[in-house]
Amino acid sequence: LAGPGALALEDDASIFTPPPGRELVVTADAMVAGVHFLTDDPPDLIARKLLRVNLSDIAAMGALPHGYLMTIAAPRDTPDAWFAGFAAGLAADQAEFSVTLLGGDTTSTPGPLTLSLTLLGTVTPGAALRRNGARAGDEIWVSGTIGDGALGLAVATGMLADPTGHLLGRYRLPRPRLALGQVLVGIASAAMDISDGLVQDLGHICRASGVGARISAAAVPLSPAAEAAGPAWLADCLGGGDDYELLYAVPPELNYTAAGAGLAVNETATVIGEFVAGPPEVKVIGPKGEPMYLDRRGWSHF
Amino acid sequence: LAGPGALALEDDASIFTPPPGRELVVTADAMVAGVHFLTDDPPDLIARKLLRVNLSDIAAMGALPHGYLMTIAAPRDTPDAWFAGFAAGLAADQAEFSVTLLGGDTTSTPGPLTLSLTLLGTVTPGAALRRNGARAGDEIWVSGTIGDGALGLAVATGMLADPTGHLLGRYRLPRPRLALGQVLVGIASAAMDISDGLVQDLGHICRASGVGARISAAAVPLSPAAEAAGPAWLADCLGGGDDYELLYAVPPELNYTAAGAGLAVNETATVIGEFVAGPPEVKVIGPKGEPMYLDRRGWSHF
Repeated sequence: LAGPGALALEDDASIFTPPPGRELVVTADAMVAGVHFLTDDPPDLIARKLLRVNLSDIAAMGALPHGYLMTIAAPRDTPDAWFAGFAAGLAADQAEFSVTLLGGDTTSTPGPLTLSLTLLGTVTPGAALRRNGARAGDEIWVSGTIGDGALGLAVATGMLADPTGHLLGRYRLPRPRLALGQVLVGIASAAMDISDGLVQDLGHICRASGVGARISAAAVPLSPAAEAAGPAWLADCLGGGDDYELLYAVPPELNYTAAGAGLAVNETATVIGEFVAGPPEVKVIGPKGEPMYLDRRGWSHF
Repeated sequence: LAGPGALALEDDASIFTPPPGRELVVTADAMVAGVHFLTDDPPDLIARKLLRVNLSDIAAMGALPHGYLMTIAAPRDTPDAWFAGFAAGLAADQAEFSVTLLGGDTTSTPGPLTLSLTLLGTVTPGAALRRNGARAGDEIWVSGTIGDGALGLAVATGMLADPTGHLLGRYRLPRPRLALGQVLVGIASAAMDISDGLVQDLGHICRASGVGARISAAAVPLSPAAEAAGPAWLADCLGGGDDYELLYAVPPELNYTAAGAGLAVNETATVIGEFVAGPPEVKVIGPKGEPMYLDRRGWSHF
């Protein structure tokens, strides 16, 4: 798994030289068994999710990923086969996303498996997408479909059926929007990835930018599998986490249409509302035109 | 704690621009309560040790530290006062070592407190100290005194008295040898920091460099507190970990004398043996000229 700068993982540290004229973009996320994934989830999918949630952060900055460091605190009785599966998952995603392992640390723990990954990427100086640039009047866009991750967790815990397997797949294996993020440099006035849930994360942009937001629940794009779950699950789609889609602001004068740039042929991005002058609050207009109210956790209730 | 590149910790990632013409040096280490520190250790000292074990890795590469990312998996009942103490420890060492927080993640865990820190530093391109450059005939040097950390752990667990508090202090608060590491660029043919124990870590340099090593136990510098513990603790000094001193190779033709460069007035570095042609093994000559034998864990037995 180790790349050239990792010095075969035999030194005290690794060496990484960013391409000339680029700024470094760095992010770190931790995942704990029983909190962020289920202990008996397939180890290759745990590895890939760990890498992908960090790749999603790099995507949200409009940056290009290069390499990562990882620390693993594992119970002593973790079988070799588990580590083999975990490494195979990393290898698959390293190939898919052109990143390599730069270094890290492995230790034992009397507690649950605890993973931490730091990802290094680069961006043109000054070009990084930020959360603080949204202005009143900017359109609010999301990539892909919203809510599949949250419903996939409900599937994993036995609360929801998933005949096609789409929801569980989306929960276990996010798709970091790296190509889209890089396309949005120079277009989006603000961006972030949706990890805590659409409404809560939109609130993050509002607070960073000093604007309010108004979105239409009916405009939020749902997958056929999420549609099939029925309206009782809409609040979970809007408030649940683990989407790893991009949420971004675009000034209306750009006439942005998301016409495929940075998205695969069968994928799209959708405008769901607009930023408005006023306090940094998110107003959600329900399917029948009524306001929807949110509790502190960002979850929606009718 | 956040520096300018951290973007107030409100974005998906942080931005770090290395000074022009420098290579990046990156390292990551994890620490788990009950494994690497005692749960009731003072939180400021836990924070400082976490930062310092990583600073020690950067020192061993001859690099200059800049900033760090940290992930914390903490039990839900961790008191606010604990986090306040932890942050105060970070603040103190950020000031001492001129580093800032770049980003990270905090999550809950049903298990023990688990910390992971990734440190970014820089070095002149090609100048990083490596483990693989030692040649037969090179002198083997260590900074400071050896064994205080291992004996400090024995103090912390009630197995050894420590009337002056020196040993416990050394165990809890390592001194990363940053100034020395930077001085050794262009002098040392190989270097690393001693974290697993002198004999085991010397073996790492031997394997990376393809040479053997021969050291004299009597030449290994001990603190007055370690001397006072008596000869029964010598094997622990040679084989125990947590020294965080630098272990390095110097070609004899350099006539290196460690005359204070990179060390404080009351500190020194000591030659303890030499690298030799042959298999990558460490031979320790005991106090009376007899060979000392090591078991697999790197600990010495008479």
